[in-house]
Amino acid sequence: MGEDLGFSKGLAGVVADATSVSQVQGEDGRLIYRGISIEELAEKSTYEECVYFSLYGKMPTKNQLTKFNTELRHNRVLPKAVEAVIAAAPRSAHPMAVLQAAVAAMGFDEQPVNLKNEDANIHNAIKIISQLATAVAHISRDRRGLSHIPPNTEMSHAENFLYMLHGKVPNKEEARIFDVALILHLDHDFNASTFSARVVASTEAKLSLSISAAIGALSGPLHGGANEKVLEMADGIGAPEHAKEWVLNAIATKAKVMGFGHRVYRTMDPRAKVLRGMLEKLVATKSDKSTYETLRIVHDTMIEELGKTSKDYIWPNVDFWSGSLYRLMDIDSIDFTPIFAVSRVAGWSSHIIEMWRDNRIYRPSAKYVGPTDAKYQDIKNRK
Amino acid sequence: MGEDLGFSKGLAGVVADATSVSQVQGEDGRLIYRGISIEELAEKSTYEECVYFSLYGKMPTKNQLTKFNTELRHNRVLPKAVEAVIAAAPRSAHPMAVLQAAVAAMGFDEQPVNLKNEDANIHNAIKIISQLATAVAHISRDRRGLSHIPPNTEMSHAENFLYMLHGKVPNKEEARIFDVALILHLDHDFNASTFSARVVASTEAKLSLSISAAIGALSGPLHGGANEKVLEMADGIGAPEHAKEWVLNAIATKAKVMGFGHRVYRTMDPRAKVLRGMLEKLVATKSDKSTYETLRIVHDTMIEELGKTSKDYIWPNVDFWSGSLYRLMDIDSIDFTPIFAVSRVAGWSSHIIEMWRDNRIYRPSAKYVGPTDAKYQDIKNRK
Repeated sequence: MGEDLGFSKGLAGVVADATSVSQVQGEDGRLIYRGISIEELAEKSTYEECVYFSLYGKMPTKNQLTKFNTELRHNRVLPKAVEAVIAAAPRSAHPMAVLQAAVAAMGFDEQPVNLKNEDANIHNAIKIISQLATAVAHISRDRRGLSHIPPNTEMSHAENFLYMLHGKVPNKEEARIFDVALILHLDHDFNASTFSARVVASTEAKLSLSISAAIGALSGPLHGGANEKVLEMADGIGAPEHAKEWVLNAIATKAKVMGFGHRVYRTMDPRAKVLRGMLEKLVATKSDKSTYETLRIVHDTMIEELGKTSKDYIWPNVDFWSGSLYRLMDIDSIDFTPIFAVSRVAGWSSHIIEMWRDNRIYRPSAKYVGPTDAKYQDIKNRK
Repeated sequence: MGEDLGFSKGLAGVVADATSVSQVQGEDGRLIYRGISIEELAEKSTYEECVYFSLYGKMPTKNQLTKFNTELRHNRVLPKAVEAVIAAAPRSAHPMAVLQAAVAAMGFDEQPVNLKNEDANIHNAIKIISQLATAVAHISRDRRGLSHIPPNTEMSHAENFLYMLHGKVPNKEEARIFDVALILHLDHDFNASTFSARVVASTEAKLSLSISAAIGALSGPLHGGANEKVLEMADGIGAPEHAKEWVLNAIATKAKVMGFGHRVYRTMDPRAKVLRGMLEKLVATKSDKSTYETLRIVHDTMIEELGKTSKDYIWPNVDFWSGSLYRLMDIDSIDFTPIFAVSRVAGWSSHIIEMWRDNRIYRPSAKYVGPTDAKYQDIKNRK
C-alpha cells in the first residue's frame, strides 16, 4: 500500500454502481435512507416501516403497512430443511457460519429468479427478512443449550426477536431501543457485505443464495464483529477506574483503540450519536454499569487527549456503543454480528432488487503480474 | 446501458486487483495459469499438479506431489455436520444451493483466519478442495435417491469423483478426459465467482465461508449453467437432421444460440478447442452420438453462415462442448454447475490466498441518485 499500483486497491473511491437506497455523507457525518436522515427515522419510524421504505422506495400508507406487517409476521416459522441445517451444527459452531448455511438452505426450493417479476422478488425478500431473525434466535439458543422459542405473530419484529432470543417478552422500552438499533444498521451504501450481495446477485443467483454470501462477508472481522472487539477491549481494561490509564498507554504506544475511526466518516458517525443517547437512558435503569462506564471514560479520554490538538483524532463509530447496549439487554457478544445481519438483510435485499432493474454481471479486470510464457518442466527436472 | 453513467457498469474494464494466478488473453484466445498455457497443461499435467501449482505458485517436485496427493486423498471423508446439512435437503433441492450450505458447514468449526499463517490457510484450502468433490457426488446421489459411495484413497481426484458419482470405477480414458476438464475449468482470472470469493475473503472471512459465497455466484444463470443451457438447446432441436434449419432460423430471427460468445474472448476460447478434441475421441467410443452431432452441425452452420462475412460472428465458448462431454459420461445436466465448482474451488482458493498477502477490504463507492433531503411524513398524510 502507498505505492502506486496503477489501480485502486480494495476499489477505494471506485464507483461500482448507482443506488438510491442510502447515502453516507462521510464529511458531514450524515446517513440518509432514500433521502431521510437516520436521526429522523430513528426518532419517528419503526424498523418495519423502514424496511418497507427501503424495499419499495416509498413510505407505506396505513393499509400498506398493516398488510406488510401481517406478511412479515406470518413468515416467521422456518421451513423444516432450514431447521434441520441449524440442527446439524454442533454447539461449538460459529453462529455466522450456521446462519450462512441456514440462509443458503432457504434457497433449496427457491424458484429461479425472474428479474422482471419485481413483486415476486420483494415478497421473497420479506420472507427471508422474516425468517433470518428466527434463524438467528434459534441458532443462539442452540449454542446456549436452550430449546427454541417459536415466533409470535402478535409482536413487532424487534419484540418478537428479543422474545425468541430470551424466552420472555421484553419490556416496551427495551423493545423500542432494539427496534431503533435495527433501523440504524439497516443500510450503509456499498459496504463489503452489500457489495458482496450485489456481486453474487448480478449473476442472477437466487436472493437467498446472494444473502447467504453477504453473511459470509459480514462474518469477516474487518467488517462485522467490531462491536464484539470493543467489548473484549472493555473486558480487558477490567474496570472503569483503569480506563483512563489504559487509553493514555494505548496512545503512547500507538496501540489500537477499538471502535474509533471509519473508512467513510471523517467526523462523528451519526449512528453512534443516536446509540449513545439510547444507551444512556438504558444504563440508568440497570445496576451493572461497568462496561458502559469503562467505555465512556475511554471515549472521553480519547477526546481530551486527541480531540483538539492532533490530526490523529478519529471519531467513535457505531460499533463503539452498540456492544454495551446489547450487553445491557443480556445478549452474548458472539450474537452481535448475527444481529447485525437481522437488520442489514433488509439493506442487502433492497440493493439487489434495485440492481436487478438494470443488471449487469460484475466482471472486473485483473492486472496480471506473473510470468507470461513459462514452460511445463518434466517432474524429474524440478527443484 | 449505452448511456454514459459516469462509471463502468459491472466494473467492466476496471482493474480490481493484481494477480499472478491466471491470465485470460482475450484477443489472442489464450489462457495461462501462472504463465503456462492451458493447452500445455491439458496435455502434460494432471488436475492435482495444477492445483498444487495454483496454490503454491510453483510446480511440485516428485516428493511434494506425493505428499500433496496423500493429503488430498485423506481429506475426502466429510465431517458429520456437513453430511447432516446435505441430508437436510429435500430431493427437490437445487444442488448448488445444497452445495453452498454444505461448504458453509465446513466453516462451522473453522478457526478464525490468520493472514500471516499462509501454510495453514493452504492446508485448509486442500481440505475444502478435497471435501467439495465428495459433497457434490453425495448431493447428486441423494437427488437420484441413491446411497452415498464413500471416497476411495487409491484413486486420483477425477477417478474418485466419477467413482463416487456413479458407484463404479471409471475406465482410464474417461477418468483422464474428466481430469483434463477439471484442469480447463480451474481458473479464469476475475470472473464473477472468483471476484465474489475475493470480496468476501477481503473482510478476513473464513476460507470455507468465502468459497460458499463464490458457489452462490456460480449458481447464477449468467455465470454457471451455460453448458446446461446448451444441452437444453440441443434437446430442443431434437435430432441432428433438424440442426441446420434450426440455426438458420435462429440467425434470421436473431434468436440466441447458446454457447457462443464470451465477455472476454474475442476469438476461439482455447478451452473449447481442447474440449472438442477430447469429445471427438470420446464420442467415437459411444453408440448415442446424437447430442454431439446436433451440436457439431450447430457449430459448423454458425461458422458457415457468420464466420467469414459478418462482424456478428462470435466464437463457441467452453460451455458449448462441455455439456455433451459430460452427458457422454452419464452425468445429469443439473450436476454440470456443481462439477464446475469441483474444479474452480482451486482457483477461488488460490486467489484468496494470494490476496491475503496484501489484503484490503473491498469497499467501493456508490453514485447516489436518490433524493437528499426528504422529510418523514406522518402516516396519515401519505398517499
